[in-house]
Amino acid sequence: MKTLHSPQSVQRWAAAQRAEGRSIALVPTMGALHEGHLALISAAKKKADTVIVSIFVNPTQFGPNEDYARYPRTLDDDIRRCRELGADVLFAPAADDMYAASFSTWVNETVLSDALCGLRRPGHFKGVCTVVLKLFLICQPQVAVFGQKDAQQALVIRRMVRDLNVPVKVILHPTVREQDGLALSSRNRYLTESERRQAPVLYQALKQVAQLKKQGHSPAQIRRKLIRHIQTAPDARIDYVMLVDEETMAPVTKAAAGTKLLIAVAVFFGKTRLIDNVRIVW
Amino acid sequence: MKTLHSPQSVQRWAAAQRAEGRSIALVPTMGALHEGHLALISAAKKKADTVIVSIFVNPTQFGPNEDYARYPRTLDDDIRRCRELGADVLFAPAADDMYAASFSTWVNETVLSDALCGLRRPGHFKGVCTVVLKLFLICQPQVAVFGQKDAQQALVIRRMVRDLNVPVKVILHPTVREQDGLALSSRNRYLTESERRQAPVLYQALKQVAQLKKQGHSPAQIRRKLIRHIQTAPDARIDYVMLVDEETMAPVTKAAAGTKLLIAVAVFFGKTRLIDNVRIVW
Repeated sequence: MKTLHSPQSVQRWAAAQRAEGRSIALVPTMGALHEGHLALISAAKKKADTVIVSIFVNPTQFGPNEDYARYPRTLDDDIRRCRELGADVLFAPAADDMYAASFSTWVNETVLSDALCGLRRPGHFKGVCTVVLKLFLICQPQVAVFGQKDAQQALVIRRMVRDLNVPVKVILHPTVREQDGLALSSRNRYLTESERRQAPVLYQALKQVAQLKKQGHSPAQIRRKLIRHIQTAPDARIDYVMLVDEETMAPVTKAAAGTKLLIAVAVFFGKTRLIDNVRIVW
Repeated sequence: MKTLHSPQSVQRWAAAQRAEGRSIALVPTMGALHEGHLALISAAKKKADTVIVSIFVNPTQFGPNEDYARYPRTLDDDIRRCRELGADVLFAPAADDMYAASFSTWVNETVLSDALCGLRRPGHFKGVCTVVLKLFLICQPQVAVFGQKDAQQALVIRRMVRDLNVPVKVILHPTVREQDGLALSSRNRYLTESERRQAPVLYQALKQVAQLKKQGHSPAQIRRKLIRHIQTAPDARIDYVMLVDEETMAPVTKAAAGTKLLIAVAVFFGKTRLIDNVRIVW
């Protein structure tokens, strides 16, 4: 496995692969790799001849009061794990190599970004879209694999790909969970022991959605039940609990049959913000 | 020459060319082709194995009170001229094929766009960047040829290409002019006979810049002289006359030696807005 740092060297490598008829799958990450990321890399291996894993803690998707500085960085471990899984290139650029001092071009998805995490984290999805498009243009993949855990990110990126005619197929991989249901996340390591014990409440709540629908509850009723369930965890501070239409991100209180709903939650435990989601066709 | 209308068909064609090792040059136009465009196509022929000419009057780069509806459309003539010049593909999409009803992703260059035409035409360069990136991703060129007449557009596109790591080389072709110096433009046909006689005043003024510099005039003095010269045309209504630093688009009144200056003018004759420019190293 090659570890490359400059965008130019990766772009050259990718162009050579493509010229020789080899397909490329990209797994964009912020590093601090866990079993969820590793599942994405394994999935990518099955989709293309070669796999690039990018590791870049992207400053432009963090707000001024967020955890950019303290976001976990475990590059040596990450390199070892990518090598073990058979990735071909690990792309780990420096922030300066991705953003020139006079950088001034942004990619902005303006509808799906304007809900859920986008409301709570202004500018977050502008940073995500910009860096993901850059990674696509540097790495030239035919396929890119993202995790379903970041559901809104996935929908925003798919919209960007559609709107800008990006020739990349976006594949979503199911969320990987701990035994007790907690979605894997690099931020789980921030949790205290007590917070970690309470954190599975997100998925415990979300798991009930299908059953609640079957029992005849409306989206608005389900939302109230999820909120009440999550509030049983003493340290849970709800950021949002939303049922939205996947096509528009508009909140749904009553759904027409066949509507694709995303049920998404964001909950703070102390300073740590966890997100999770399930999807359901109404 | 193939005439293709759907982005998907062009993207497939381009992918097949690339897979077979053939290079692609793109000439993006809004049609109503004149000798200036034809010079771009001839230049493109020398730069790559195959040439795509796109013809798309892009609605998103026109303001609400601009000439989108009346912009000249001469597709049959354009097709004939592209065929005669040996273009391989003419790509003429419908607006609906480029912008889905739920289109929501924009590319926004935020520094160089915020001057000259960008101030006078809010949203113009957002529309330009978005459509040009789409055309790049659809047509997959290694090389794209633009005219120097649209100097700010060229600088904004080069910045976008740099910032987003777009693997396309942007080539600028010198402005093609009428015998009397008027820069060729699809909008020249809007001019009345009297306006057409006065229009060469733009280039007559711009041509003096090198001589004025030699005589020791400052950028600020040159600007005043250009304004006075253009105002000798009775129907000329100046939109702007600016000397700016090409790297930043900041107005320059005194220049350090070696500064790359763009001297750009926009002048109305009746409802018709003409632009022209020269470049000089101070």
